[in-house]
Order: sequence, then structure tokens, then C-alpha cells
Amino acid sequence: MSSIQTIIVSGGTHGNELTGIKLLEKWSKHPELYTNRCPSAHVELVHTNIAASRLCRRYADQDLNRSFSETLLSFVGDPENYEMRRAKELNAKFGPKGPKTKTDLILDVHNTEAKMGFCLIISAHDPFTMRASAELVHEFPDTHIYYQPEERSLSPYFGTLAKADICLEVGPQSHGTIHADLFEQAERIVIRYLELAQEWNRGILQQKKKKSVDVYTQYKDIDYPRDEAGDINAMIHPYWQDRDYSALNPGDPLFRTFDGESLPYKGTRKVWPIFINEAAYYEKKIAMSLTLKTREEW
Amino acid sequence: MSSIQTIIVSGGTHGNELTGIKLLEKWSKHPELYTNRCPSAHVELVHTNIAASRLCRRYADQDLNRSFSETLLSFVGDPENYEMRRAKELNAKFGPKGPKTKTDLILDVHNTEAKMGFCLIISAHDPFTMRASAELVHEFPDTHIYYQPEERSLSPYFGTLAKADICLEVGPQSHGTIHADLFEQAERIVIRYLELAQEWNRGILQQKKKKSVDVYTQYKDIDYPRDEAGDINAMIHPYWQDRDYSALNPGDPLFRTFDGESLPYKGTRKVWPIFINEAAYYEKKIAMSLTLKTREEW
Repeated sequence: MSSIQTIIVSGGTHGNELTGIKLLEKWSKHPELYTNRCPSAHVELVHTNIAASRLCRRYADQDLNRSFSETLLSFVGDPENYEMRRAKELNAKFGPKGPKTKTDLILDVHNTEAKMGFCLIISAHDPFTMRASAELVHEFPDTHIYYQPEERSLSPYFGTLAKADICLEVGPQSHGTIHADLFEQAERIVIRYLELAQEWNRGILQQKKKKSVDVYTQYKDIDYPRDEAGDINAMIHPYWQDRDYSALNPGDPLFRTFDGESLPYKGTRKVWPIFINEAAYYEKKIAMSLTLKTREEW
Repeated sequence: MSSIQTIIVSGGTHGNELTGIKLLEKWSKHPELYTNRCPSAHVELVHTNIAASRLCRRYADQDLNRSFSETLLSFVGDPENYEMRRAKELNAKFGPKGPKTKTDLILDVHNTEAKMGFCLIISAHDPFTMRASAELVHEFPDTHIYYQPEERSLSPYFGTLAKADICLEVGPQSHGTIHADLFEQAERIVIRYLELAQEWNRGILQQKKKKSVDVYTQYKDIDYPRDEAGDINAMIHPYWQDRDYSALNPGDPLFRTFDGESLPYKGTRKVWPIFINEAAYYEKKIAMSLTLKTREEW
């Protein structure tokens, strides 16, 4: 992106992830907290999944953050399905998805129950989101970059309505709760993205020296071991609980059955798991997401 | 109780608390794991809230574990309300609540997202549950006694269908997830309760020397600070996250507003909070339960 004219700060895309929802509530009451951070752009606050937030559930009818592929957006679908309707509304207002979108940048705030700290999820090799995220990793403790390359038209995530996006995952925090220390650092990170967008629009950020960062790139998701009926028959191995971003080698114990037997990782290469034991991913049959770690200059 | 003839081991009273549900699944497949632990009693496994477990939610229509007061059990109510029906079914099968109940002891396994370890909740000064729990506190790490005195006929908890009960709270574990280390110790604790019931029926436990234990006794629940609209306007102070059972003195910082201001504890006596930041209690307007700690011979 040469210039960032329109920015959305969003929360509540999952209705039980309170960090983003509470950030929007706070900033709506006190717009001076964000409006002067990037005066060269129009910054809008968007509470995406209002119905699910009222229920304090991830979603009402289907996962809103899996509803933004071009196929789903053009699908007539069930008019009774809240998230299908809401995705179309958001697309009409802030899209339309694709090169003609009205939105340059989306910063979508999420929570995870995995011990992932502050995870900056990048969906494309966009120069601003890469540069800004590399700066943030050096400015803030416990902050990591997850690169999850997306073919934008196929991607179901809200952020892909914009030309570029960051999904900020904050954890560990049980869904339906709010932790003060995570809230405060998440707020500072979003503010810094806005300030860095301002630096970008003034050509300052582009001139700064690139920074060396660890990049965790999506490799593949793996499910829990299951029995013939499809029920989970092993748990995350206790070693792996709260060890997101650690190295997992072929043969390392990874799961433990309810009888206490350790089951090894059967992959053939070294990987770095994240989203370990995330509650919302049980129904998606994801025990963790495996990544490959590289050191890069961003 | 002079003799324990009938014991229920139950789980899934809240459908997203997986430790008890997975324990029942395991033991149903391998009855030899529990049937010989207390041969002097009939031990039954009961999956209480089946509909909510299918949804992986706390409840379908209302909290099952707030549905067992005599008033609610005798109330005709809404036949469409699953938990109201299910409470009556359980009462008919394992009660009826009161002195003529068919069940001597209920061990009901729950989870909390608070860092409470293994919390043995005792609802009455029943000699077996007191003695057995005191033994367990000395046998297992991170195990605590919470005494929550209940007028049994008024009490809404499933356990109060029986003459005596233990509610075993296991945490921290996000609802809808399972942690291997917590599962394994919870299983060992339930097994030990069954073994101690056997010792009780043979008169052995009664002869053992009483043990000195910390007892956390219910004092009162407190809510989050709220604005005029009823919305939460402060979070648990970061110091207090994961500090269950620590001493809180009048004037200590207890909450933090979204603007970063610390709010003190306004009570007039020293207390020991538990259930700090439990997700399921936001809707009940409980930020934490305050207890009073005493050293007792049980």
C-alpha cells in the first residue's frame, strides 16, 4: 500500500472475546484516545458481531470470521442466519471485497485461550503490515508474528475485506472474561499500529532500518486423536500446555490418552505449535496449528 | 452418616466442563477402574446435563446446578425447559430430596477457569466428607477445602439431592477444554474418596487421628464495579488474577478501571478470595467469592 486512507479497528468478531469489545466501548466514549494517532487517515471503530456479543458466545448461527469468502458473500443463503446477513452488511459498508474495497487496513482484535501472548497475524506480504509488525515485536514483550498466507478472495476472515489487515490475537484469556494486563498491552499495540500508519503515510517508516524478527509461518493444523465414534481419546500432553512457539521434534510426546499413555508427534520435520488447546477449535477439529519458524528481515 | 450405601459420581452438570464428562466416559468403558474401590457401597456414574454437554455449553435453558431447591423441584414450570425437566428426573431417580433420599453421597466433578487447583466444596458439617477431605488435603498437592454451608432444602445444587456431597472444582481450565494433568489428579482424588468411603464403612477412617487443615468458609460474593447502564467498568486488578486463596486486606487494590485506575477493596475485614474472574459467573454478577480462612482439626 502506498498510502493508508481508511482504517477499521474492530472487535467482537467473536462475541465472547472481550478485549476488543471493551476496547471499542472505551474508545467510543473517549474518541480523543485514538483520533489523533493517525490524522492522515479516517479511523472507524466497528463492533462486528453484535448479536453474538449480546449472547457472550463465539457466534449466534455460524462463525462470522469464517463468512467472508467471495463465495459465501455472493451466496444468497439463509436470511435467518445472523452472521451470513451481517457479513453481507459489513461487506456492503466497508468492502466490497476485492481491489475496489473502501477499506485500506483492518485491525481486528481477538482473544485466545492459548498462551500466545500478543500474536500479530499477517495474511499477506503487505509492506506496511510487515514493517509495522516487525517494529512492534521489538517494542513490546511477548509479541510474535504469525504469517498465514491467504488467497484473499477465498479467505473467510473479516480482515480480508480490506487491502491489508492484522488480526491481533491476545491470550491466554478464557472467553467471556477480561484480563487487565492483556487489555492494557493490547490497547497500546493498537495505538502503535495507528501511529505507525501515520509514519507510513508520511514516508518515515519506510526509511527506518528493517528489523530482524522470528516469523512463524502456517504449516498445518492437526486434530486430537479420536476413537472410531469420532470422540477425542487423547489430550494435549501436559508438557505442551502453555508452550506455544516452542520447538516440537518428530517423536516428541505430544498427546496423552485418558489411560496415561503418551503419543508421539508423527510428523517428519521440526515444527513450532501455536493455538494449543484453544476451546473454540475443538469443533473445528484443531488441537493446535503447526508453524515453521524462520528469522527474517522485515 | 453412619454408613454409605449409595454413591453417585457425576459430571457434566455444566456441559462445557470436560473433566467430569471425560472421567465418566473413561470409567463407563472400564468399570474395573472404580467398582472395586468401595465394594461396600453401590457406586453409580451419572452424566447429569446431557443436552448441554452435546452443545458444549454450561446449560441449554437454565443452570442445572441452580435447579435443585425444593421450591424449584416442586414447581410445575415450563415443560420446554430442559434443565427443569432434567432436575425433576434426577430427583425422581436418585432423591427425592430430603431425609428419604435414595443417595447417601454425591461426588460431582466441576471445572473452573480460576486458579483454584483442586477445591473440595463441602456443603454441610457432615463427618465423612469433612474427615475424608482433610485426608485428601494432606495427600494431594494444590488441594483446598471450601466450606459453603447450605440449608439443604433451599440449596439449588445437584449434590444436595444426597445426604452428603462433595463438589470437586478443578482449575484453571478453560471451559470446553481438557488439561491432562488436571484430569489425572482429579481422577485420583475421586478414587481416593471412594476408597475413604470404604474405610468409613469399615470403621477405619473414624479411628484415624484428625488432621489440621485450612478451611475457607463462604463469606460473601462481590460483583464487578459497573456503570449506570449496568456494564462492567473495571477489571480484576492484575495482581489478583490467579491469586485465589491469597489474603486481601481492606484498602488493597482489587479492581482496575479501563482507564488504568486502581480501585481498592472496600470491605472492613481481611478475606481470602476464590473463583476470581470465573467466566460463568459474569452473568451471575460475581467477580469473586470472598472467604474467611481458619485452621481447624477435621
